[in-house]
Amino acid sequence: MDHADVVVVGAGYAGLSAARALRAAGREIVVLEAAGRVGGRALTERIGDDWAVDLGAQWISGGHTRFAALAQEYGAETYAAPADGANLLVEGAVRRPFAGARPPLPPLVLVVLAQAMWRIERLAARIDLARPWATPGADRLDAMTAATWLRRNLPERRARHLAEVMIGEELCVDVGSVSMLALLTTIRAAGGVEAGVTAETVTRLFVDGADGPARAIAAELGDALRLNAPVAAIQQVAEGLSVRGEFGEVRAAQVIVALPPALAGRIAYDPPLPAARDHLTQRMPMGSVLKAFAVYERPFWRDDRLTGQALNLHDPVPVTFDATRPGGPGCLGALVPGRAAHRLAALSAGERRAMIIGSLVRAFGYAARDPIDFREKVWADDPYTRGGYGAFFPPGVLTSIGSALRQPIGAIHWAGSETATEWTGYIEGAIRSGERAAAEVLAEYRVTAVG
Amino acid sequence: MDHADVVVVGAGYAGLSAARALRAAGREIVVLEAAGRVGGRALTERIGDDWAVDLGAQWISGGHTRFAALAQEYGAETYAAPADGANLLVEGAVRRPFAGARPPLPPLVLVVLAQAMWRIERLAARIDLARPWATPGADRLDAMTAATWLRRNLPERRARHLAEVMIGEELCVDVGSVSMLALLTTIRAAGGVEAGVTAETVTRLFVDGADGPARAIAAELGDALRLNAPVAAIQQVAEGLSVRGEFGEVRAAQVIVALPPALAGRIAYDPPLPAARDHLTQRMPMGSVLKAFAVYERPFWRDDRLTGQALNLHDPVPVTFDATRPGGPGCLGALVPGRAAHRLAALSAGERRAMIIGSLVRAFGYAARDPIDFREKVWADDPYTRGGYGAFFPPGVLTSIGSALRQPIGAIHWAGSETATEWTGYIEGAIRSGERAAAEVLAEYRVTAVG
Repeated sequence: MDHADVVVVGAGYAGLSAARALRAAGREIVVLEAAGRVGGRALTERIGDDWAVDLGAQWISGGHTRFAALAQEYGAETYAAPADGANLLVEGAVRRPFAGARPPLPPLVLVVLAQAMWRIERLAARIDLARPWATPGADRLDAMTAATWLRRNLPERRARHLAEVMIGEELCVDVGSVSMLALLTTIRAAGGVEAGVTAETVTRLFVDGADGPARAIAAELGDALRLNAPVAAIQQVAEGLSVRGEFGEVRAAQVIVALPPALAGRIAYDPPLPAARDHLTQRMPMGSVLKAFAVYERPFWRDDRLTGQALNLHDPVPVTFDATRPGGPGCLGALVPGRAAHRLAALSAGERRAMIIGSLVRAFGYAARDPIDFREKVWADDPYTRGGYGAFFPPGVLTSIGSALRQPIGAIHWAGSETATEWTGYIEGAIRSGERAAAEVLAEYRVTAVG
Repeated sequence: MDHADVVVVGAGYAGLSAARALRAAGREIVVLEAAGRVGGRALTERIGDDWAVDLGAQWISGGHTRFAALAQEYGAETYAAPADGANLLVEGAVRRPFAGARPPLPPLVLVVLAQAMWRIERLAARIDLARPWATPGADRLDAMTAATWLRRNLPERRARHLAEVMIGEELCVDVGSVSMLALLTTIRAAGGVEAGVTAETVTRLFVDGADGPARAIAAELGDALRLNAPVAAIQQVAEGLSVRGEFGEVRAAQVIVALPPALAGRIAYDPPLPAARDHLTQRMPMGSVLKAFAVYERPFWRDDRLTGQALNLHDPVPVTFDATRPGGPGCLGALVPGRAAHRLAALSAGERRAMIIGSLVRAFGYAARDPIDFREKVWADDPYTRGGYGAFFPPGVLTSIGSALRQPIGAIHWAGSETATEWTGYIEGAIRSGERAAAEVLAEYRVTAVG
């Protein structure tokens, strides 16, 4: 049996950031990670001559100050996401290039869409990020799905469909599953509609992959980090908390669980969690997303002055983007969120590949037909993540048990991007949540030491 | 390490019914139950001279044919639920007695309510119980909450509030959290609006408690039943499945997991469950309910020709009923569903008791003030149930991953009242689900034996 001041469960960016802050404050820590790697929902693979592809989170944008600070500290280089040329709007067999974030749709469609976005922006601006359930009108907004709100406020079918695709890609769940209050909260937490829903803030990628800073923190942690150590139980014992699994047992005065709520709920707690916290773990499921990359000798779409970004309105692959590293082979990324991800997850890898390549061909022509490499990650199949990008709130959850999200239970504290009040669901949110949980632990420790 | 043909996980009515059917077919079984008792969401305590009170499921009604058969086989006596006299409608300080199921509300309110119920009945009649997602219009009904449907179809505020209270009591979750398609499915599975939402079918209680037949089956199972044996992991091994926990290990060719999906999801599966099944366990949470009984020397409310049934529209305790056993002390039951159950769960037991007794006093007068006994069960706090009456479908789940509900994963089969196509959420559904899972296992076994 091992001992530590604090055990951190999970070595994604949240857990690693917490561990780093605690160690900097002189605490003895043990980090237990279920998988054989760190990074959580950031996962970088290598292709060809060691070029990075990010099968998980990848972007860093202007508001991501903590992530930028980590990147700088660990010397992780970024580059501007390729944006030269035209984006594509694909509707069936029709492909239309367009510049910027405003797709080439009839003026009426654009006007009603802009009106709806303005209404969403105005509603989102009212959200109290620390306590969304206390926002005026919260009960009513939480008792409806985002689909219901869009049906009422965006009756024009084509505009609504575009909004549904954009929101679905942002949350990785269909608008018919998510609470309108939760959607507004997510949008507000990402800086508003322009920042959260449009492509405006998708600014930079990591040359060497988005998990670089995570691996650098892991290297610093050395023996304090245990991989392949899934936690099965957290038990209160006379001297603190016992954290157990097939790996053995670690005892500590405090624990930070840095997992999404659904996974945190799969740990057996003794004493059992109070009703509200337990129900939060039951009622805050993960979204679903499949991410794939097709690699080509060169970024051939640039010959046609295309950015590689396509919005595909009637296709299993609604969003593609250019993930080519500077000087590296051409790389097209594809995101399949929500229901389509579930449908594709049920197919064979070969069928999935055929469907995704088919979408790329529809957008970028026959040159996309024969990639030299192809990588994919079905996040709902990952045993220690079980979905992505993050968890979401179905209707009725935020206003009934939402306040259990960050509330410590005894000496057990909660981190993870879902617990962030800003940039929820992003690596930035994960880092901030870990630092917040570490600060909680240190504050509690101080009180205990004084008391 | 033990061996069996089939391991059954969970000794509620579903697991026990499966075990009983398998044993009758000559299979060697082991039943693993996490709690120190059988019955699951049926839980009987004793008061005074050994009079039963059912802190969980208690009613048996006309359509409950399998439950009736079990009751008869094990000699579990029932009696007609007391119905002589008037019910009460309580609104603030105003109490109004009424006969039958039609509350004393203005004619307009009753008319719009009847219209809405007729519409619900008509929509429910279309539901394909085996495949609700294949019902015409399913996508649209599943993309909205029941609250949204009621707002549109029952704009009269008082009628809507009454419908919300009745539905909330039926599902143990607020109408703002549940999918309209799921509500219709539940109603249809319980025989329609009249049977499912009104009190008409609440017909009989068990003299000796609703867990009597469960305890009788448990006695027959003898050593094959292991209590206090929470299952932590189910792993595929060369010769079948290994079922493990702190109790040890049992190996079997087949496993029936007879738990609600959220609890089934807390078992660690190796290989991991496919995405759709895993997400179903994340997205099908338990409702929340608190059940309490106040015991009095005699059923004093009968002096005023009251049934003990009250519908309390602006109160944490919306529903009360008479649970007096023939010849026993007076017993008033109280149900607190959904959000109110969560609010009360966060209070101390003393505060909860004061609130519940307060409600009984408002309905039945000062004679209710000093019960000689008081029992309560906060189901969301029960570590091996974590809610009640059953699980529910938030919007968007049925139409995306609903088909994973009963689909076996290799040799792992799923039972539990949630998997029943009729009487879902009732003991009757649990029994039918267990018998269905046993039949699946026997059919699979036969195929294996022949092949």
